[in-house]
Amino acid sequence: MHFSSKLIEDAVHEISKLPGIGKKTALRLVLHLLKEEKESTENLATALVKLRTQIKYCKACYNISDDDLCAICTSHRRDASTICVVENTPDLMAIENTAQYNGVYHVLGGIISPIDGIGPSDLKIAELIDRVKGSEEVKEIILALSPTMEGDTTAFYITKKLKEFDLKISTIARGVPVGGELEYADEITLGRSIITRTEYPQD
Amino acid sequence: MHFSSKLIEDAVHEISKLPGIGKKTALRLVLHLLKEEKESTENLATALVKLRTQIKYCKACYNISDDDLCAICTSHRRDASTICVVENTPDLMAIENTAQYNGVYHVLGGIISPIDGIGPSDLKIAELIDRVKGSEEVKEIILALSPTMEGDTTAFYITKKLKEFDLKISTIARGVPVGGELEYADEITLGRSIITRTEYPQD
Repeated sequence: MHFSSKLIEDAVHEISKLPGIGKKTALRLVLHLLKEEKESTENLATALVKLRTQIKYCKACYNISDDDLCAICTSHRRDASTICVVENTPDLMAIENTAQYNGVYHVLGGIISPIDGIGPSDLKIAELIDRVKGSEEVKEIILALSPTMEGDTTAFYITKKLKEFDLKISTIARGVPVGGELEYADEITLGRSIITRTEYPQD
Repeated sequence: MHFSSKLIEDAVHEISKLPGIGKKTALRLVLHLLKEEKESTENLATALVKLRTQIKYCKACYNISDDDLCAICTSHRRDASTICVVENTPDLMAIENTAQYNGVYHVLGGIISPIDGIGPSDLKIAELIDRVKGSEEVKEIILALSPTMEGDTTAFYITKKLKEFDLKISTIARGVPVGGELEYADEITLGRSIITRTEYPQD
């Protein structure tokens, strides 16, 4: 693409580094910013730099946070006896958005994946063990990891490490998605949903 | 959507003001920036602020420019006897990308649209007249405006204003798009393409 301006070229170049944004979209965004007030570009730039330089990781659960401890860990409304172990912040946000969970979290910062060179020591697993060891309060660990080979490996590893503690360890249910047609569910999921069937509520 | 961090919330809010970017995409971009080096966020922010604060408008053609005169107006390779009148910079860029035009431009900065309260005085039409008046060089004006009601009105207005000068005034051809199926062309376009048929090249 031809830009007659170096300023535009630089801005397009930087924006199109973002995932899912190509040169055409970047140019559209740049031309939009030029039409708007100067302040809106400045606000955008400030918010991005502030975010990147001021963000912290919660010292308890390793969720991204504005302070040393995140809003979830410091909330009195959350049940600290249940820890939900997730791979990363987007997964945590996805669970938060269901509004079905009231415990706290532990963000691993990844998943065991030998192919990507990620082992248990690269994740916050030791920190999870320390957290359980240092607290009388924790009663249950929920493993909310992706139902993939890597997720299963990570769950298996964590379960082994937590064996010595008197804890309930659970994993999120795997089965047919709500609203999905049974006919289109894959065999493994459907098979698993029969094995791990739950009692039908009667009353 | 629930964000446990004010920094994330602010960044998502600012990004999602951009056209075609919703909260979910904004969050994805924010989490991407958090994974990348600090420098890439700073580079992005700097490029945007520099763009917005340092960009100028070419004093001859009103194209966006890094200097007082844009790269097209100052180029010795461009034919200054032909001025192509366009609505805005994206249209100029679209024509530049065809690599079929070697003249210069005049960017109106909009189009006459009474419904949006935009009249001739809001556009760089007087500047176009002055430009033609002040130069012996200009021989042809190409009106490259959108084939809409507003585009036609603007073209008609400009044509009337330019009547007193000894100029060739042309407009970009309207007809069936190259590569399009005739059967799917709309009636007005197809009708017009018959009326304004051009001689078939024989040799």
